[in-house]
Amino acid sequence: MSSGEDELIARYFRPLATDPGAFGLIDDAAIIKGSSDDLVVTTDAVVEGVHFLPGDPPQTIARKALRVNLSDLAAKGAAPAGFVLTLALRTADENWLKEFANALGEDAKLFACPLLGGDTVSTPGPLSISVTAFGHVPAGRMVRRSGAKAGDVVLVTGTIGDATLGLALLKHGSETGSPAAQNALIARYRVPEPRVRIAAAVREHAHAAMDVSDGLAGDLAKLCKASGVTAEIKLERVPLSPAARVGLAKKLATIEALISGGDDYEVLCTVPESSLAAFLSAAAAQRVEATAIGVIRSGDGPPVFISATGRPVTLKRSSYSHF
Amino acid sequence: MSSGEDELIARYFRPLATDPGAFGLIDDAAIIKGSSDDLVVTTDAVVEGVHFLPGDPPQTIARKALRVNLSDLAAKGAAPAGFVLTLALRTADENWLKEFANALGEDAKLFACPLLGGDTVSTPGPLSISVTAFGHVPAGRMVRRSGAKAGDVVLVTGTIGDATLGLALLKHGSETGSPAAQNALIARYRVPEPRVRIAAAVREHAHAAMDVSDGLAGDLAKLCKASGVTAEIKLERVPLSPAARVGLAKKLATIEALISGGDDYEVLCTVPESSLAAFLSAAAAQRVEATAIGVIRSGDGPPVFISATGRPVTLKRSSYSHF
Repeated sequence: MSSGEDELIARYFRPLATDPGAFGLIDDAAIIKGSSDDLVVTTDAVVEGVHFLPGDPPQTIARKALRVNLSDLAAKGAAPAGFVLTLALRTADENWLKEFANALGEDAKLFACPLLGGDTVSTPGPLSISVTAFGHVPAGRMVRRSGAKAGDVVLVTGTIGDATLGLALLKHGSETGSPAAQNALIARYRVPEPRVRIAAAVREHAHAAMDVSDGLAGDLAKLCKASGVTAEIKLERVPLSPAARVGLAKKLATIEALISGGDDYEVLCTVPESSLAAFLSAAAAQRVEATAIGVIRSGDGPPVFISATGRPVTLKRSSYSHF
Repeated sequence: MSSGEDELIARYFRPLATDPGAFGLIDDAAIIKGSSDDLVVTTDAVVEGVHFLPGDPPQTIARKALRVNLSDLAAKGAAPAGFVLTLALRTADENWLKEFANALGEDAKLFACPLLGGDTVSTPGPLSISVTAFGHVPAGRMVRRSGAKAGDVVLVTGTIGDATLGLALLKHGSETGSPAAQNALIARYRVPEPRVRIAAAVREHAHAAMDVSDGLAGDLAKLCKASGVTAEIKLERVPLSPAARVGLAKKLATIEALISGGDDYEVLCTVPESSLAAFLSAAAAQRVEATAIGVIRSGDGPPVFISATGRPVTLKRSSYSHF
C-alpha cells in the first residue's frame, strides 16, 4: 500500500541517506544530534528556466541544487552536516530520477553532506528544487556579512564571470573560442565549484564573508552595506579564467557584465592585513585560489571599481535580481 | 544597489525574523544555537493547484505552508524552534506579499516558530512554497513511526475527512449542508490545525506517531509497515465533525473516501494500554481531542477497517499519491 512517491524515494534517495539521523527516509522527520556547535542553516532553490535551462542534464541540475547551498556554508565558515531536499516534479520519469539521484549522491559523498530528508511533490509547472543545508561552526563563530572593517583586504576565490559567459553561450551560441574553452564556461554555469575546503580559513581569518551568487559587484555592495563600509576594487585584479579572457577579447561580454552577472558561487571575504599571509597560506594548503582584489574603506555607498587606467567604472546594474 | 528581492524581504519578511539567529535576514544563513537537545528537521512543500487552489487567499496559503510542517513536528513530539521558507513567485505582487507575510507572521507568533531565513525566487510556473521547520526534543526522544507494538491503542486527534469534503466543495460546489457547515469544511482544507499542544503528551506516552496528511488509512499502513505490525480499526470510531456527518448523510462522500483522502493534518499515534488514561488526560489538559479508534495487532499487511456491521471494508485506494 505504499504510495508512488514513497517507492520512488525508497528506490532512488534512500541510498543517499547515510546519516543515522535520516532514519533511512522512512520517518516524517530527521534528527540532527545536539552539540555545543552552532548549526548554520541556509536555503536556496533552483528553478528550471531561471537557474538552469530546460534540457540541462539531470546530473548537473542535481549538483547545482546542492552546490549553491554548499557555497553558502563555505562562505559562512561552516563544515557541511547534511541537507533536506524538496523536489517538485511534473512527472516521475524514473530514468531522470535515477540519474539525478546518483549525481546528488556522488556530491553528497564528495562534500560529506548526507541527505537527511525531503519532500517530493507533483507540480504542473517547471521542475523546482529547494535545498536546505546545514553546517557546523563552533559556537558564535559563523562568519557574518557585517564584520568588514576599513583597511581589510577584499579577496575572492577562483575566477569570476565564467558562468555568465557559459549561460550566454548556452542561450545564444557562438562561434568564438575553442570548443574546450566554451565547454569549460558552460560547465561552470551548470556545475559550480563550492569552496568547501576554504571554510576553516575563512572562519579563522576573515572579518566578513559571503558567497558570490548574484554578481560580484552587487554582492560586495551588500557586504559593504551590512558592514557600514565601502570598498575600492581594482578591476584588473578581478581573477578571470583563460576562457573568460578569450570571451572578453572576442567581445562576448564586457568586464562590467562579468562582475555583475550571477552564478559564480565563489567566496568573497575581507581579511585584515595582519592575517593576509596566513589566510593565503591556508587557502593554498587547501588548493583553493584566493585573489586580493581591493580594500575596504570607511564610508558608505556601493564599492568603487577602478579601471586599469585609474577611472571609476559605472555599472548599469550590479547584480541579478529576480524581480 | 539593493536588488528587488532584497527590498521585498526587508519590507515584508524581516518583521517575522524575531529570533537573534535569523540576523534580521540580512545574512546568507541563520544560526540555531547548539544545545543538548536533538533538532528535529522536517520539510514539506505546497504547490498551487496541488495543495491549494489558484485564487486561494494569500493568508490561508501562508498558514497552510507553515502549519503542514508544524503538524509533522507535533507528531514527532517536538517543540517548534523556527523555520526557513522558499517562495517561488511568478510576480512580486506587493499586496499579495503583504497579506501572505502578515498571516505567516501571525502564525509564527502563535506557534512560537520564528522565521530564520529563506530564499525568494521567480518562477514561470505555479506559486510554490517550501518550508523546512525545526523543533527540539530531548536527546533520543523523537517519536518514530516504527515503535508501535501489538496491543497498543491507536488514537487520532481532532476529526478526519473534513478537508477532503472541503476540497470537494471548492472543486465541485454543492447545495447540500448549511453555509456554515460548508465554510467549516473549506476552512479545514485551507488552514489545518496543527496539534502543537499535544507534542509533549505524544513524546511522553506514544510508542509511535506520525501526522495524517495523505489519508488516515494509507498513513496508518505506513506506520504499521515501519513498525512491523498491523492494526484493526473500528470505522464507526473514526472521529467525524458534525459537518462531515452531514456530508456523509447527503452522500457528498463515502466514509472510505474520508479515511483515504488527504490534508487532515491530525496526529496519529499508538499508546500502550497502561498509558492510555495518562495520555488522554494530558491531551484534554491541552484541549486537544484524541479518540481511540482501534488496536495494533501482531502480523503484517495493511490495517483492517471494520464496519459497524462487523465486516472488513475494502478500500480502492488508501491515500493520496503525487505520482
